[in-house]
Amino acid sequence: MPKISQSFPQPEVWHKHRVFYGETDAMKVVYYANYLTWFEIARNSYIHKQGLSYIEIESRGVFLPVREAHCRYYKPARFDDIIYIRAGIGEWKRASFKFIYEITNESKTKVIATGYTIHPCVNATGKPIAVPDWLKQACICK
Amino acid sequence: MPKISQSFPQPEVWHKHRVFYGETDAMKVVYYANYLTWFEIARNSYIHKQGLSYIEIESRGVFLPVREAHCRYYKPARFDDIIYIRAGIGEWKRASFKFIYEITNESKTKVIATGYTIHPCVNATGKPIAVPDWLKQACICK
Amino acid sequence: MPKISQSFPQPEVWHKHRVFYGETDAMKVVYYANYLTWFEIARNSYIHKQGLSYIEIESRGVFLPVREAHCRYYKPARFDDIIYIRAGIGEWKRASFKFIYEITNESKTKVIATGYTIHPCVNATGKPIAVPDWLKQACICK
Amino acid sequence: MPKISQSFPQPEVWHKHRVFYGETDAMKVVYYANYLTWFEIARNSYIHKQGLSYIEIESRGVFLPVREAHCRYYKPARFDDIIYIRAGIGEWKRASFKFIYEITNESKTKVIATGYTIHPCVNATGKPIAVPDWLKQACICK
Repeated sequence: MPKISQSFPQPEVWHKHRVFYGETDAMKVVYYANYLTWFEIARNSYIHKQGLSYIEIESRGVFLPVREAHCRYYKPARFDDIIYIRAGIGEWKRASFKFIYEITNESKTKVIATGYTIHPCVNATGKPIAVPDWLKQACICK
Repeated sequence: MPKISQSFPQPEVWHKHRVFYGETDAMKVVYYANYLTWFEIARNSYIHKQGLSYIEIESRGVFLPVREAHCRYYKPARFDDIIYIRAGIGEWKRASFKFIYEITNESKTKVIATGYTIHPCVNATGKPIAVPDWLKQACICK
Repeated sequence: MPKISQSFPQPEVWHKHRVFYGETDAMKVVYYANYLTWFEIARNSYIHKQGLSYIEIESRGVFLPVREAHCRYYKPARFDDIIYIRAGIGEWKRASFKFIYEITNESKTKVIATGYTIHPCVNATGKPIAVPDWLKQACICK
Repeated sequence: MPKISQSFPQPEVWHKHRVFYGETDAMKVVYYANYLTWFEIARNSYIHKQGLSYIEIESRGVFLPVREAHCRYYKPARFDDIIYIRAGIGEWKRASFKFIYEITNESKTKVIATGYTIHPCVNATGKPIAVPDWLKQACICK
């Protein structure tokens, strides 16, 4: 297990989660697709922490689908474990940005998984648009 | 395990399914909420078999939310099992109807779970409406 | 929407939850099977609140599968809603017991769904056993 | 949308799937984590097509967890769509191998998503082991 990153992009959020039975599989560990759900939950926490909400972003005509998702699994999470999903924005491009994630143990010392998701900004018809300034500003300021 | 019902409402559908890893939990059996997903898949198969589709039903302004769901578990399903979801409509009321289900083993002889879902008909604004004749006719005719 | 129950069995737990995107479906409401997952999460919270854990219960050779599950849906939950899952034990039998649930809005005033699950006690080989005294005592005492 | 690959590794499997409601989200498209579930279903189909089963592989003391998962989303899948999950093994290393995937439309002409998963071989205690010859042989032969 790697240690947590000392240079994680700021601001960041640490979302606490207790593993429930429905997330596990017959190997007695969390099913691998559920890590992407955890990423989404942490993205949402991040957005809220920065004073925004997806609903408000969408009401301004901006949609943030997922273009790409990646996860690297180091150590399984198990039923009833407390884990943290750490999330921040690792890269801004003109019309997209990248969330990065670390899933850690309860003591926030070891990383059990890492990952990223890439989000283009699109309008209501699905056409790519530049990242709005208000979105970037809200996400950058602590 | 009970035997399959000899007086199941007709028409009926038998939807074949192979249990995948993501459906199981740390008890090495299918997680209990997934049976409701199986019910939905079988409802959809039923609708298709009767020559309709949810999309077409909704395009006619009729929506079929779930008002009530019930499942009785007799014997667990496990990873890689072949099971069948048998579905039919057990009851018609003026403004709602009831789907009933039997989940069976691969040989269609034993029932591993039973259940039902109750569906009111509502319009686009969520207001209850009478079951449309065309819907009932399509579902009744074999 | 009914009001919350004034005579809910005690002790009880109120588990707070924010609806995430993955829980919703194309009707823009929470998919109906996910309410059973919420029930499980609240059961686990309840067990923890009473000073136990499923893992400890299982380590004592007692397993609590679900024999029956029921949900009545009153009003849909939507993405980003804060909801509470209220859980308590509504009935004790010799070899099984019944959890009951109310899903409420953020202000804990209105019930958006109710439900129950019935759990037999079984040993490691799946054989029914009487509810252990230590389990009942732990769950009854506040 | 890219076209399907002309040089996909052989043997391959095309697993047919109809999108159900529970797979969609409030954007009215399939929730992004579910693509990883589709990958798993196709891996399992592939294993079966080659005359093996995960259960048999595990009974020989070989486990195939996921070390890494990736998905690139090109075009959303929607409720009731028929899609295919094409799967094959793209790379063999000494102690791991890589499944690659294409999700296609119903006519198998366009790719709506691509992805891969990397699987180390481990024994029952989680220790890495070389890919067994019998596993590689079974997966290579058509």
